[in-house]
Amino acid sequence: MTYCIAMRLNAGLVFLSDSRTNAGVDQIGTFRKMSVFENPGDRMMVLMSAGNLSISQSIRQMVAEYLSPDGTSIWTASSMVEAAQIVGECIRNVHKRDAESLEKFGIDFNVSLIFGGQIRGERCRLFQLYSAGNFIESHDENPYFQIGESKYGKPIVDRVISPITPLDEAAKCALISMDSTLRSNISVGFPLDLLVYGTDSLSIGQFVTIDEKNQYFQMIRSTWGQQLKSVFESIPDPIWNAAPEATSNVLSTSGHLNHPVRISPPTSVARIETRTQQRQTLAQDNENKRQH
Amino acid sequence: MTYCIAMRLNAGLVFLSDSRTNAGVDQIGTFRKMSVFENPGDRMMVLMSAGNLSISQSIRQMVAEYLSPDGTSIWTASSMVEAAQIVGECIRNVHKRDAESLEKFGIDFNVSLIFGGQIRGERCRLFQLYSAGNFIESHDENPYFQIGESKYGKPIVDRVISPITPLDEAAKCALISMDSTLRSNISVGFPLDLLVYGTDSLSIGQFVTIDEKNQYFQMIRSTWGQQLKSVFESIPDPIWNAAPEATSNVLSTSGHLNHPVRISPPTSVARIETRTQQRQTLAQDNENKRQH
Repeated sequence: MTYCIAMRLNAGLVFLSDSRTNAGVDQIGTFRKMSVFENPGDRMMVLMSAGNLSISQSIRQMVAEYLSPDGTSIWTASSMVEAAQIVGECIRNVHKRDAESLEKFGIDFNVSLIFGGQIRGERCRLFQLYSAGNFIESHDENPYFQIGESKYGKPIVDRVISPITPLDEAAKCALISMDSTLRSNISVGFPLDLLVYGTDSLSIGQFVTIDEKNQYFQMIRSTWGQQLKSVFESIPDPIWNAAPEATSNVLSTSGHLNHPVRISPPTSVARIETRTQQRQTLAQDNENKRQH
Repeated sequence: MTYCIAMRLNAGLVFLSDSRTNAGVDQIGTFRKMSVFENPGDRMMVLMSAGNLSISQSIRQMVAEYLSPDGTSIWTASSMVEAAQIVGECIRNVHKRDAESLEKFGIDFNVSLIFGGQIRGERCRLFQLYSAGNFIESHDENPYFQIGESKYGKPIVDRVISPITPLDEAAKCALISMDSTLRSNISVGFPLDLLVYGTDSLSIGQFVTIDEKNQYFQMIRSTWGQQLKSVFESIPDPIWNAAPEATSNVLSTSGHLNHPVRISPPTSVARIETRTQQRQTLAQDNENKRQH
């Protein structure tokens, strides 16, 4: 299904995407999901996509060629909002062209896009676009967007990322988020595209394509995994039925709420005593006999 | 959407469920998702559900009352497979009764169940059942099942759980998995039901209902969160453009693959040099002038 994540920080933008496409388990392919629109000194914009590949490739093609009635293109849009509206318009044009035919084959017009970057004279901006061509913008309270298989990799990003996170730390976080996703879902795969952009640089900062052999990614995978296990082992196991003051690790089983929703067998079903209960009953019987 | 997880280990079984139900953001409720069928000394079985609440409650009710034509019930089934088939039969009966009416209101017959436990004379067994009443069984290669919002909490379970994991460690892992889910998805909420069962005990081992104030869960939440951040900070940031031998943390940008999919502006669009490039051009011009 793909996984792409982008973060908008005070220091700039980080974009990370995978490259796996599938039309079923016997039709896996490698197609890059990240496209860069760069006019150094004027603008740097990144488009990432998830969903139906033919739709997202068509959109990318159309964005590159788009000319509004007044002659505006992605290269002359005066703001990132105007550029995002152009992308939205292209989504709608592809929909007009293709949606009906796709539907005849039972295929939904399904696409999600992340579009972000900076145009000279403006701050960095980041958008998420939907199949209907509408979009939302990222702000400090929500400094990142994800599309595709986003759930596996979300917890670490929620814990770590804020607008003041430095770029390299954010890149590291994106890679860890991707690692969790790669391990859990085979519809996400190598190679990965990672782009880091510094605020006001108006050109690509760093770009790298990461495959399985990449040293840094291998280090992240093994270190993160080992450290997670160490942290897990260092957290105390629960202690049952202790007084709360004795320790802070009590999973108390006292109290009125600590009863499961229980369905008991009907009286017609023989109640089987446990061996312990049988021994206790026997011992009590013997005791009773002795007294009489 | 709920989140439930169950693990089948050599030492026994662990079950954990949440209690949040929603029919939209203005209709949140608390309903327990775990039911226990216990006849101490003979059998201990746990049923957990996700999906449409009216369907899963109906199934639970039906399982409690079910009698096959030959008089077998959940209390007299001779094996856990036979018991799972009874649960499957009840799913089908509820479907027969309700699916058509639900469909008229545009509601899918959507339910998933986890059913596990032990019957005397047999080993522990764990099943996942589907809307069609069919099911699969857990084995050592796949020692756990999840239903509901399963993705957020999957990575930690994949890293940590194996058949030899002790019960308390497995319970700890389930709680951490639930914590990640609670933080990431508001359709999962307190209280939680946690049941731990020891192999061959044939009765509930430990049971606790966990709310926001539970000491142990609070400790897990804060410790896990802090430790994750420490581990994250201890992993080196990437180093760009260094020789691979220099360090193991290289995100190299050399090599034929390290080029993004790039869309360049057409020649009609003015190329804007960066200030740096302008200075370089100017310095070169001056140098050229000096030489002549």
